[in-house]
Parts: sequence; C-alpha cells; structure tokens
Amino acid sequence: MNLRKIVHDTETRAGRLFDLTVLVLIVFSLVTFSLETLPKLSPAARRALEFSEIAVTLLFTLEYGLRIAAAPKKRDYILSFYGIVDLVAIVPFYVASGIDLRFVRVVRMIRVLRILKLAGYSKAIVDFGRAMRLAKEQFIIFGFAALIVLFVASAGIYYFEHDAQPERFASVFHSLWWAVSTLTTVGYGDVYPITAGGKLFTFAVLMLGLGIVAVPAGILASALTKIR
Amino acid sequence: MNLRKIVHDTETRAGRLFDLTVLVLIVFSLVTFSLETLPKLSPAARRALEFSEIAVTLLFTLEYGLRIAAAPKKRDYILSFYGIVDLVAIVPFYVASGIDLRFVRVVRMIRVLRILKLAGYSKAIVDFGRAMRLAKEQFIIFGFAALIVLFVASAGIYYFEHDAQPERFASVFHSLWWAVSTLTTVGYGDVYPITAGGKLFTFAVLMLGLGIVAVPAGILASALTKIR
Amino acid sequence: MNLRKIVHDTETRAGRLFDLTVLVLIVFSLVTFSLETLPKLSPAARRALEFSEIAVTLLFTLEYGLRIAAAPKKRDYILSFYGIVDLVAIVPFYVASGIDLRFVRVVRMIRVLRILKLAGYSKAIVDFGRAMRLAKEQFIIFGFAALIVLFVASAGIYYFEHDAQPERFASVFHSLWWAVSTLTTVGYGDVYPITAGGKLFTFAVLMLGLGIVAVPAGILASALTKIR
Amino acid sequence: MNLRKIVHDTETRAGRLFDLTVLVLIVFSLVTFSLETLPKLSPAARRALEFSEIAVTLLFTLEYGLRIAAAPKKRDYILSFYGIVDLVAIVPFYVASGIDLRFVRVVRMIRVLRILKLAGYSKAIVDFGRAMRLAKEQFIIFGFAALIVLFVASAGIYYFEHDAQPERFASVFHSLWWAVSTLTTVGYGDVYPITAGGKLFTFAVLMLGLGIVAVPAGILASALTKIR
Repeated sequence: MNLRKIVHDTETRAGRLFDLTVLVLIVFSLVTFSLETLPKLSPAARRALEFSEIAVTLLFTLEYGLRIAAAPKKRDYILSFYGIVDLVAIVPFYVASGIDLRFVRVVRMIRVLRILKLAGYSKAIVDFGRAMRLAKEQFIIFGFAALIVLFVASAGIYYFEHDAQPERFASVFHSLWWAVSTLTTVGYGDVYPITAGGKLFTFAVLMLGLGIVAVPAGILASALTKIR
Repeated sequence: MNLRKIVHDTETRAGRLFDLTVLVLIVFSLVTFSLETLPKLSPAARRALEFSEIAVTLLFTLEYGLRIAAAPKKRDYILSFYGIVDLVAIVPFYVASGIDLRFVRVVRMIRVLRILKLAGYSKAIVDFGRAMRLAKEQFIIFGFAALIVLFVASAGIYYFEHDAQPERFASVFHSLWWAVSTLTTVGYGDVYPITAGGKLFTFAVLMLGLGIVAVPAGILASALTKIR
Repeated sequence: MNLRKIVHDTETRAGRLFDLTVLVLIVFSLVTFSLETLPKLSPAARRALEFSEIAVTLLFTLEYGLRIAAAPKKRDYILSFYGIVDLVAIVPFYVASGIDLRFVRVVRMIRVLRILKLAGYSKAIVDFGRAMRLAKEQFIIFGFAALIVLFVASAGIYYFEHDAQPERFASVFHSLWWAVSTLTTVGYGDVYPITAGGKLFTFAVLMLGLGIVAVPAGILASALTKIR
Repeated sequence: MNLRKIVHDTETRAGRLFDLTVLVLIVFSLVTFSLETLPKLSPAARRALEFSEIAVTLLFTLEYGLRIAAAPKKRDYILSFYGIVDLVAIVPFYVASGIDLRFVRVVRMIRVLRILKLAGYSKAIVDFGRAMRLAKEQFIIFGFAALIVLFVASAGIYYFEHDAQPERFASVFHSLWWAVSTLTTVGYGDVYPITAGGKLFTFAVLMLGLGIVAVPAGILASALTKIR
C-alpha cells in the first residue's frame, strides 16, 4: 500500500523523489550511452562507462521489480506500453546474443515521457492528444498525399535526369532520396537536377508539393490553439 | 444492375472487395514500375517484371471494360476525368510507337485517388476542397506574387552575379534556377552568390520573399481548421 | 470622356480590351528582356529582340501619353505611384547615358500589379492590405527582432569560427552571410561552422531564432483567415 | 526631479531626445564593433575606431551615472535586468584582463530593447509576452519533444552511418550536428547519409520530426492572432 504510493503516484513527497531519481538515472544512462560511442576513449574511461552501465541497469531492474510489486494488477502493468518499455530497457544487458542489442538502450528515451507527469504537464499532453485526434483524418489525407507527391516526384525526376546522371538517379528508388531531401527543403546538395527539364520539373514539384509537407504542421498548430 | 453496384458503389461487400482489388493492383503495378528502373536486374527478374506488367494491364483493361459496361451513361463515364485516366493507364501498352510511353504508366497513381472513397475519407477530401475554394482568390494572388518575386529575384541576381560567375548565372533563365532553390529554402548549394552585392540582394529577397512561399500553406491550414 | 472610360475603367468592353493589350505587352517585354540575356544568341535573334524592344517601348510611350490625356487631373496621375512607374518603364530607352539602365526595365514588372483589377481580385488585395495593417506592429517587432538575431548570430559565429576559418568568417560582415543563409534555412553549404563551439552556437541560434523568421508568415496567414 | 523625467520617461520632448541619442550611440557602437573585425584595416581607420570606442564608452558611463542619479530607488535600478546590462556594456573597457572581453560589447544589443518604448510599441511587446505565456506549456512540451527527437535521430543515424562514414559520424555527439542541420531543414551538405538504411531512417525522421520544429512557430502565430 505504501510502496504503491511511492512508485505509482506523484502526490506524496516520496513519490516525487522516486520519479526524480528515475529521471536522473535515465538522463545519466543516455549520456553514458552517447559517451561510449566517442572514438579514442582511454581504457580507464571505457571501464568507468561500462561500470556505470552495469550499475544503472541493476537500478533499473530493481525499479522494474518494485513497479511489479507495487502494481495492483501485475499482469496489466507488465503488458502495458510502459511495462514493455521498462522491460526492453534492461533486457539487452542480460541477453548474450549475436545481434547487437546495444541500441535497444535508446528505448530508455521513451521512459522519459512517463516522468512528464512530475512536471504537471499532463494537461498539455492531453491537449496535444485531443488536437491530434481532432485533425486525425486530415493528417492521414496529407500523409497519403505526401507519399503520392514523393512517388510522382521520384518517377518524374528519374525520367528527366537518369540519362544525364545515371549514377545519382540510378532508379526510381535512388530518385526518392532526392525527392525527400528536396520536398522537405533540406537540400543537402548531394543530388540535384542538372538538365533544363529536370530543373523545370523541380520548380513545378516544389510549387505544388511544398504545401503538402508544410500544411500538417499548420493544421496541428491551429488545432492546438483552438483547443486551448 | 448488379454489376453497377459492384463496380461503382462501395456500400456492398462485393463493391468494397472490387475496389480493394483494384487498389492492390495499382500499388503492385507502381512497385513493379519502380523495380524495372533498377540497374543490374537479372534477366529472370526482368522477365518476371515484364510478365507482371502484361498481367496487370490486362486486368486493368478488363476493369475498364466492366466500368463502361456498368456505367448508366457510358459516354459520360468515358469522357469523365476518371474515365480518361483509366484509359491513359492502359493505352501505352497497346500502342507501339517511337516515343517512350512507359512513363504514362505513372498516371496510374492518380487512380489511387478514387479508391480513397473506400476508406470513408470523403468528408476530409470535401473539407479540403471547400478550404481550397474558400481561399481560392488568396492562392491565386500569392501564386501570382510568387511568380513576380521569382522573376525579380532572377533578374536581380543576374545583374549582380553575371560578371563574377558567367557560367552559373549565364542568363535570367539560368538565374531562375537559383531563385527557385533559394526562395523555397531548398538551397542545394550548386548556385549561390559570391559578390557582396549579390549576397545583400539575396538577403533582401529572402526577407521579403520568404513569406510569399510560406503564407499559402498557412492560409490552407487556417482554412482547414475553420471548416472543421 | 470616352477615352477616360477606355484607359482608366474596366467596366466597358473597350476598357477591358485596352488593359488586356497592355498586360500582354508587359509580359511580352519581360520575356524579350530575359531572352536578351541568353548567351550565344544568333545576330538575327538579337536584331529581332532589339526591334521588338523598340516597338514595345513606343507602344508604352503611346499608352503613357493616352493616360495623361485621359486623366481628369493630369498632375495627380503623373505624380502618382503608377504614373512614376509608367514613366520609369520607358525613360531608359530615351536616355543615352554611361550607366546601365537596361535593368530599369524590370520595373515594368510592377505595372503588372495594376492589371490585377482586370481579374476582379481587388477584394483579395484589399483583404491583404487590411491583414498587413492589422498585424503591422507585430511585423515591425519581428522585423526588428530578426535584425537583432542576425547581428547576434553573426558576431557569435565570428567569435567561434574566425580562428578556424579566417577566410570564410573574415569579419562580422562576412559572418552575416552565414547567418542569413542559416536562419532562413536555405543552407547553401558554402559556409558552415567546423568547430565544436561553432556547431553548438549554431544549434542554440537555430532553436531560438528559427521562429523569428517563421512567425511573421504565420501571423499573416492567421490575419488573412480572420479577415475573410 | 527634472532629471528623472529626462532619463526615465518618454513623455517629455527632452526625454525622447535623450532616448534617441542613446539609441543612435548604441547602433553606432555596434557598427564600429563590426568594422573593427574587418581584416586589412588601415592603421588610420583602426585608430579612428579605437577612439570612437573610447568616446562611446565614456558617454555610456555618463549615461549609467545619470540613470543611477535619476533613479528613485538606486539599488533597484542597479540590480534590475537593464541596470546589469547597462553595467556589463561598459565594464569590459575598464577591466584589463587576460580573457577577451571585447565580445561582451555585444550585450549592448540588448540595450536596444529598452528603446522600443520610444516607438510606442510597448503594446505589441506586451501582446507577445501574453502569447508566450498563453502557449508556455506547449512550448515547453515541444522543446522537450525536439530534444528527444534530436537525440533519437543522432543515435539512429550513428547506428546506420558510423561504419560507412567513420569520420563524419564518429560518435553520437558528431551525429547530433547532422540531426540539427537536417531537422531544421538547413541542410548545409557537409554531412548526409550515404547508406540505404541511413537514407530510409532520414526519411522517417523527417516525416515524423519536421512538425516538431515547425509547430511552435505556428502556435506562437496563432496565439498572437488570438490576442490581438
């Protein structure tokens, strides 16, 4: 009874302290995860990072045990979204396998979401969810339209540029990379049309397709303002 | 009578199944179209793709025949937007000609639109249409303004950069490519000003012209939110 | 009396025809202007373009004369915005001078605006003007804020990158070019930070400064929707 | 009594003149600051800039003294935001130290803000503040979400591209630079994925993450329109 208040609630001082500790641990584990990827780490630093990873995982395992113990319906918690995330965050450590599971640790990121309840931002998140639902159909339509625009752009630029740049526009799939980097206006500059036809086609695609990418964000912003 | 319900309606089970089959076929034909452009395909794979193209086109031809047969006013269907699209999607296969008609197959993309009625998103599309009509005049004004801004930017950058980069800014038409890639903020990096005057001009053009490209998407998003 | 109706009004058939003729002439003169900048023009083509320029300018001069003749208060027309634009559009042709006046022909672009009344889009333009006035103070604040952000970004990146890239970030003025191309998200790729400090600074500048550039377009779109 | 009206108010003619003089001095000092960074300055120009810096700093010191003298509660002014900014703007000149304090002069930029009261734009600034407060929770949520998206993008692209480009994607921290330049759509082109997996991941990240960066500006614009 007492444990449940600490682990699952944020109304008591102990509950908030518990959540804060978990939050600090998550951020700490993500920082050490990033540090481990640094090249030219000294053996001492590498050992320290490995040790901290063991320590953090043991603490997360303890936390997972506590959450199961404190849950009124254990089965419900284990099969809930957060229950699975909590498990996936520790399991790679215990499983010795051929595939590289280190990156599964990134799922710990998701655990940060739960901690938001600490800050009392539940209302803003609920608003966000309502805005998404309110505009759900429009998001699906625009997501669908975006895929059509991307495909038409890829096929079109392949037609115009394939002969001039057979390496960069080798197939419709290669051209899709150009379409993504152009229609999101990222424009890295690794692929771009060089023929007059390809440039005119890019012009047309951008004039018609830019809105497809820009509108959903606008819809979301409008919906959020309306709900508030 | 019965045929019409299957081919033209989505209220019956058979009608929905018919539409779903067509949708699957369209997506399948677009995927094989893209796969055909891959370089270094094995002869076996190429033969398989060619065969599937023949099969799909025959099925589309059958579908076209069924739609004509099921239409209450055959002439109206044949001359309708979708009727023409349905015809254009199969005709390249039957016409042996010198010009490359393979790309006409991309029009099959458009046929996907019709299938949207399946998903019950008609309301969202109607909303979209109403939002477009509501803001029609503003779209035309901004489209017009965009063309003016693009022309002025092209002529201006030609004036500033032609002497410094006679190849890249060879004429106002060449400069238009720079204007398109800059004002849409794609910025590939293949053309950019190098003179102080050209850079200041770019600054001014971006400050004034960025909104011209960004506003229409905002108008559409606002209009969509209002209608909902 | 009759002349005034043709030249200044669009209510009569003759008035609309007059405006349409002028519009066609303007677009024609802008196309020939662009064509003249093409390199490797044949002498015959060049002569044709020069001749058409003479013809167009004479017709514009005739139009200018007609507008003065038809104006109820000639002085008001000559000193009005459009009166000055109409004059500037023809004067370079008649003035032989050392400075290159060819580019003044671009002002003919502005004359296109007047023709918008033809299409009956006056209401949309009036709406646009009202939206601009409604949000005027916010535009000035954001324009001002944009200048501050650009200056701070330029000075900051100069501090971080000057030692590493003394050529590209030679002074705060050189750095301003980077700030413009980064904060508008054009990102040509001709200048970018290479030091860790410069990259972190870019991160911070983008997180805080991106909105400064994006918000005005959003304000305009919202204001336009509200007015409609 | 009289001094306070000149220094702290803008209702009298003398008060406005005082503020205007300070504004001109600030802009002048920022221009000379930028000019000093120009390479290849003649010794004479450099001396002139140094002299003008001394003169401006002395005038700012005088202004600081006047503001203290005129303040009803001197301690309140000295410890206020603007009081500290005013002090920081002059202190580097008087402190001889090993660290480079020249860049602290950039804080003079902040002083420009105070002068806005001159132009009567206080209302617009108050509106802006209210819009920010109105949408505060949403800004925090989206800022938080942006950090999560950036981290996940960095870790993911490191996983896909590290082996192919060990230099450019050397660690998760190096990959963060790619994530920043991609999700803000700046896309300099110094780092971009080259593997098929990396490109597909970029596609996914952009589709989901673009809104995270674009939505806050839309929220602010909507909130500003609502308040007006």
